[in-house]
Amino acid sequence: MEKSFVAWAKVRASRLPSVKIGIGDDAAVLAGDLADSVVTTDMLMDGVHFRLGEASPQRIGRKLINVNLSDLAAMAAQPVAVFVSVCLPPEGPGGMPRDALAAELFEAICEVCEQREIAMAGGDTNCWNGPLVLQMTAIGRSVGGTIWTRSGARPGDAIVVTGPLGGSLLGKHLDFIPRLDVASQLRGDPNVHAAMDISDGLSIDLLRMCDASRCGAIVSLESIPISNAAVRMSETSGKAPVEHALSDGEDFELLMAVEPGDLNRTLERLQSICQPAVCGEFTSRTGLWTRMSGKLEQLPARGYLHGV
Amino acid sequence: MEKSFVAWAKVRASRLPSVKIGIGDDAAVLAGDLADSVVTTDMLMDGVHFRLGEASPQRIGRKLINVNLSDLAAMAAQPVAVFVSVCLPPEGPGGMPRDALAAELFEAICEVCEQREIAMAGGDTNCWNGPLVLQMTAIGRSVGGTIWTRSGARPGDAIVVTGPLGGSLLGKHLDFIPRLDVASQLRGDPNVHAAMDISDGLSIDLLRMCDASRCGAIVSLESIPISNAAVRMSETSGKAPVEHALSDGEDFELLMAVEPGDLNRTLERLQSICQPAVCGEFTSRTGLWTRMSGKLEQLPARGYLHGV
Repeated sequence: MEKSFVAWAKVRASRLPSVKIGIGDDAAVLAGDLADSVVTTDMLMDGVHFRLGEASPQRIGRKLINVNLSDLAAMAAQPVAVFVSVCLPPEGPGGMPRDALAAELFEAICEVCEQREIAMAGGDTNCWNGPLVLQMTAIGRSVGGTIWTRSGARPGDAIVVTGPLGGSLLGKHLDFIPRLDVASQLRGDPNVHAAMDISDGLSIDLLRMCDASRCGAIVSLESIPISNAAVRMSETSGKAPVEHALSDGEDFELLMAVEPGDLNRTLERLQSICQPAVCGEFTSRTGLWTRMSGKLEQLPARGYLHGV
Repeated sequence: MEKSFVAWAKVRASRLPSVKIGIGDDAAVLAGDLADSVVTTDMLMDGVHFRLGEASPQRIGRKLINVNLSDLAAMAAQPVAVFVSVCLPPEGPGGMPRDALAAELFEAICEVCEQREIAMAGGDTNCWNGPLVLQMTAIGRSVGGTIWTRSGARPGDAIVVTGPLGGSLLGKHLDFIPRLDVASQLRGDPNVHAAMDISDGLSIDLLRMCDASRCGAIVSLESIPISNAAVRMSETSGKAPVEHALSDGEDFELLMAVEPGDLNRTLERLQSICQPAVCGEFTSRTGLWTRMSGKLEQLPARGYLHGV
């Protein structure tokens, strides 16, 4: 649904000179008088993106802002301000009053804002009898003119991810740290040709980057960094850990296309702040590929691999 | 709830030099590198702000964008871009498929964007089994440095509204036109000291402007412009038409504090685009007042008037 809508909206939305990058990337970039503001927006719903009661309001509030900040990091933007809208249910978990629920959600958001010197600059608070819905719009600025997009990957570029993948449902999807430190560290590095955050799973998001960049990718399955959570999940899921690393969503690591010539220097700069891994290379042949017994075979974008 | 939360959030939110005007006005103004972007955000929920089925998806989509544009108009900003988030229910009215519902909502938004040269620059589309929820963030720019706030009213200023009030529930709350034309027309007029849009009813919003401006207002009840819808509603509501004009929400006319010296010239400039009315004056004594048999009496902020 979302994919087809984005494609539709991309065609349907007017192209104006005020928008440098509109629908289709992690965030929008406004040009002209607005001097490269970078704007992103995300909605989270109870029962879909979290379960109120299983997750505390604090963790839900943190997820809301960190999901947005992850999008800004993926564009190399520095966050400036966030705007929060909520529909509050009649009560929170364990009969918590509505006002207390609101206060805990916003307190968690404010704490992240304070740590990162981001303004909570507005919002809209509503009450209803339905489930909790949260929405945030985050605005950032580009620094030194750098904006990473999904469309800059070139054949030969290394596929770099900033940390181990898979099994995020066991907790990381609520507690991840958005990769703003990676954006700060590599913002001035001309070797980063493209970036995005991994929100729907490595294989799906890598294919999106390939499509946007009009190229393909050859994935080295044995080089994909696998999280402990992916290993734990594989014990009961019947899937191999690497399948979780390829197909689980909400890792919120960055996926980058990096110039191969000077790759080691870029990796060194990352090693102090994350666990970077090179897990393949971009190629001119479109689609996702992997080498099996020396032969290139198509890698299903869903990441589900028979026989692994 | 909302009022107490806004008060709380205003104190709680960090003050940063990047935000010229934060929580508490119709929209936020970002400073510095963002060159006075004006950002507003609103959420609409089925069963609260509209009823899907009674109102068509087109009217709901138009309301979403126009509510946001009304906030920008109230700040004298020129809209630049909007960002739309939705939670879509399994189906629309009469079994309309989810995709068709989404398309009709977005089509209506795109039409307004095209007419006004606004970019639909991003968003987030989600599906769930709950009711329809829509959210928009709109970003505008200030023109020529003018930004209207709620806090500039001065004792002696005329209370000006841009059109007849009350009974919006009969249809105007879905079909109103945001007063961007008033913003364009009066943006350069130094006689406009304060402005806001009337979303919760004249009496409540006027009191908000008074509180923000640290003054009061004397309302001439006989000068309040009363809409035909307010008259129609009074036939069954048991309330006088003027009570509807004072207390009904979602009129989305602008409320302005205008320098009295040159008032007629300002009114003349408005007459070609709306039906302006002067319905009292601001005063140094805080609170809302009206003259009854020559004596000042307190006007209840809820607008409900005994004996009128």
